[in-house]
Amino acid sequence: MTNLLPDWTQFSLKEKIGQMIVVRASGYLFDHQILYPVWEASNPQLSYWLETLNLGGVILLGGSSAELLLRTQQLQQWSKTPLFIAADIEEGVGQRFKGATYFPPPMALGEIAKSDLSLAINYAYQMGEVTAKEALAMGINWILSPIVDVNNNPDNPVINIRAFGDSPEIVSELGKAFIQGAKNYPTLTTAKHFPGHGDTSSDSHLDLPIISHNNERLESLELIPFEGAINAKVDSVMTAHLLINAWDKQNPATLSKTILTGKLRDKLGFDGLIVTDALIMGGVAKFADSEEIAVKAVEAGADILLMPDDPELAINAVYNAVNTGRLNVERIDESLNKIWQAKQKIFNHQNKNISIYQLSQKEDRETVKNILKYSLKTSKNLPLKVTSNKSQRNLIIVDDILNAEFLDRQMPGFTIPNLLGYDLQLVDQNTFHNVLEDNRETLLQIFIRGNPFRGNAGFNETAKSCYHKLLKKSIVKGLIIYGSPYILDWFTTEMNLDIPWVFSYGQMAESQAIACQTLFNLSTAELREMSENLGDIFI
Amino acid sequence: MTNLLPDWTQFSLKEKIGQMIVVRASGYLFDHQILYPVWEASNPQLSYWLETLNLGGVILLGGSSAELLLRTQQLQQWSKTPLFIAADIEEGVGQRFKGATYFPPPMALGEIAKSDLSLAINYAYQMGEVTAKEALAMGINWILSPIVDVNNNPDNPVINIRAFGDSPEIVSELGKAFIQGAKNYPTLTTAKHFPGHGDTSSDSHLDLPIISHNNERLESLELIPFEGAINAKVDSVMTAHLLINAWDKQNPATLSKTILTGKLRDKLGFDGLIVTDALIMGGVAKFADSEEIAVKAVEAGADILLMPDDPELAINAVYNAVNTGRLNVERIDESLNKIWQAKQKIFNHQNKNISIYQLSQKEDRETVKNILKYSLKTSKNLPLKVTSNKSQRNLIIVDDILNAEFLDRQMPGFTIPNLLGYDLQLVDQNTFHNVLEDNRETLLQIFIRGNPFRGNAGFNETAKSCYHKLLKKSIVKGLIIYGSPYILDWFTTEMNLDIPWVFSYGQMAESQAIACQTLFNLSTAELREMSENLGDIFI
Repeated sequence: MTNLLPDWTQFSLKEKIGQMIVVRASGYLFDHQILYPVWEASNPQLSYWLETLNLGGVILLGGSSAELLLRTQQLQQWSKTPLFIAADIEEGVGQRFKGATYFPPPMALGEIAKSDLSLAINYAYQMGEVTAKEALAMGINWILSPIVDVNNNPDNPVINIRAFGDSPEIVSELGKAFIQGAKNYPTLTTAKHFPGHGDTSSDSHLDLPIISHNNERLESLELIPFEGAINAKVDSVMTAHLLINAWDKQNPATLSKTILTGKLRDKLGFDGLIVTDALIMGGVAKFADSEEIAVKAVEAGADILLMPDDPELAINAVYNAVNTGRLNVERIDESLNKIWQAKQKIFNHQNKNISIYQLSQKEDRETVKNILKYSLKTSKNLPLKVTSNKSQRNLIIVDDILNAEFLDRQMPGFTIPNLLGYDLQLVDQNTFHNVLEDNRETLLQIFIRGNPFRGNAGFNETAKSCYHKLLKKSIVKGLIIYGSPYILDWFTTEMNLDIPWVFSYGQMAESQAIACQTLFNLSTAELREMSENLGDIFI
Repeated sequence: MTNLLPDWTQFSLKEKIGQMIVVRASGYLFDHQILYPVWEASNPQLSYWLETLNLGGVILLGGSSAELLLRTQQLQQWSKTPLFIAADIEEGVGQRFKGATYFPPPMALGEIAKSDLSLAINYAYQMGEVTAKEALAMGINWILSPIVDVNNNPDNPVINIRAFGDSPEIVSELGKAFIQGAKNYPTLTTAKHFPGHGDTSSDSHLDLPIISHNNERLESLELIPFEGAINAKVDSVMTAHLLINAWDKQNPATLSKTILTGKLRDKLGFDGLIVTDALIMGGVAKFADSEEIAVKAVEAGADILLMPDDPELAINAVYNAVNTGRLNVERIDESLNKIWQAKQKIFNHQNKNISIYQLSQKEDRETVKNILKYSLKTSKNLPLKVTSNKSQRNLIIVDDILNAEFLDRQMPGFTIPNLLGYDLQLVDQNTFHNVLEDNRETLLQIFIRGNPFRGNAGFNETAKSCYHKLLKKSIVKGLIIYGSPYILDWFTTEMNLDIPWVFSYGQMAESQAIACQTLFNLSTAELREMSENLGDIFI
């Protein structure tokens, strides 16, 4: 890092407010690679903003680890003040940026914690440490993780397996361990989404969910893991776009002074960065115009406004609110103080030098495999016996065929069944009905998990009716579910329990290898033989 | 480049032979990303080879431009002697490595040349110049292009639209222009595949094709573009795994002294690098064991052995052949001399410094769009009128759903029809039959082109019968074919000519935008309005 942190007290008021803004940008180097043009500014626009608006940071999505390294170097060069560079890396850096270590979703750790809490804590610590190390290697200095929401609603479409589970104590312990692991490197961590997004059945990316629990319940459940994170000295807390009726009937938490200043800052004593969730999200964007949202968030106590609709408008709105006396400049200075504390941790730290070539170390990949193995669920009647002389299919169902990272021809979910004599049939939920007439014996592999913006947990009535039809024909001879334990629950109540099944929390290559190995009871020798053609990714 | 070229005459015999070997490696940084484990060594193996065997170079596949930059830096560090770093970038660097400029296949230029040769020459020059500039930016110093085969066999499964066309004069002119354009940067060019792979109907990746033409025909057709390339001072010529009966009834060209030394070196006077095509390819690998192949190729006159089965075995085999007197050391030294001439061009040149951030410049992307526009073919009866109140589908057929680079949800071939009210239905040739019962009005988009290793030009009898069934139902209201003009030929003889159609040589985003804009006759204003959601990639 060549830029040194300047003295923020020398900034103009607008430059100060600029530091409170984090904008979204593409992780790709070139404008023609932008995947979300509505949210991600072009390079000329972005470099103009960084240079003239003195923005606090960027949040990046898209691109591989190699791209990110080059991209973060470029962005830091464009900016006169060293930037926060944030990313939603909740399942390791590899979840978003290929090449780095891709961990299973947090709920896999929660599963392990049920039988061995200290083992799960150990894994959560390692996950935090590896995530921070790899983030640093590519110039990410702000990890928007861990999620410390308590996912006690199986229909939650947006948190789901992104949470550590449904027990506040387990979520608290694992969240703390993640934060402590990450503290080995000068990167920031984030507990989210305050005061708890686990008990919703709608998606705040689309609408504003309402939480109707009383104060006692919130304090005895939702807040527990946030208190844990604050005790573990988490660097930032992200707000939720939720209406918490017991505390503020008017304003979503993100815009509520009662909640951000009254509860989080004063009552819980959090003295780090308060960052809003993305302000362009439906849950808050529908609430007021974007200028008013920016002012209200600062008024409520937010230090960082994440992804405002237009950063220039947001800065001007907050600037005008100060000039007209609605906000006082001390409120801004308080935030700048906290921002500088965080930036000093990042930039004035004696940096550990991590080479990009050191990502995804063998021991880190072993940790991933161990988490997957310990959190695997299986039926009693394994293995599925292969009858190699029959015509049989490997029916793979994905959520969205245009958006499935694991759809790579080398993936074990394709290659292992293929070597065992299964023909691949790949469909998504929209084309599922097209393959219902096929009566071949079927290995069914389902890759579906709750994802933001879908409005459901990836499992709708049309899909269920297709699964019913398929199960009725008695051709499904084996089942692997990757991702959602809630989908497993549905199957184990609806299907013939003679069907051998395996459930993995992950969807990545290692998940597929472990699940297929388990379903077919393949020995390591057999896998090794297969691997001469397939590489050693899954051994 | 920090390593300086050492004095090769100080090398041991084995070190000299090592310089004659180019091995395949993954363009990705990490072993868990290797896509072709049979061909691509792990990093420990590769770094050992580079350090101890003094290998001449690597050929890279896989990874984005950003990854390539980091990868080539790593590989050069592992090697004591500066490496050739080659890539099969026949359609611009962006064909293989995302982020860089992706040109249409060479036959698009051949199409333009039919009506305006000087315009096509101009584009070929620019394509060579941009390809060399972008290759250099990421550390690639050997472009395995241009293809100067004359594709005069429509059933050619492996050359096809990778060639500039079926006229030796046009191929010659465009090949020369590409080479001259590339000479603006210190990267090597390659004329391939000597003495001409255009008139085959089998794939030398799988088997050894036989060419039965007599000497006069070869000299008056196949050799013309090679003579052109040699006149333009092409740096290297790649051999073909073909049996040329008129010249050598025993040995494939790659292993034939009559052809490599007699014809290419002595008769045509080529004094640059002779490089074999990949020695692991079926066309030559079936001919003898891998040691014998290595020795025969050197004996025949090859300077570089590309992708031998095992580089250590190949070096030892050639070493033993020298020690037993079958080869003399002058044959090796001749090759080292030529290798050093080439490496001096690359490494001792006053390098133009190209930043990775300068890839894919606006003017280069304009050239791509212009080539696509000038080479577009259309029916007379455009546009396809959109009847927005009807249920209609956008049926997209791809060759292999697990291997389609353009399958990105932002691609105009999906997004434009979607905005016009078409539902996406995406299948590959294996699942095509599943959607034949659907009777909705159909926009049919076909993304199929000849590709190596498939054994056919991507258009088999099963697929044809599906297309027949579809056409018979009279539901196809519009057709876009991306890639193969030979598939267009089939459709224009088999289908009702009232169906409006568009043909594009490219398959990338820009092709899709131009083809859809043309089919629906969208104005730039309409496209711009759509682009608020879609980005400006196709404006």
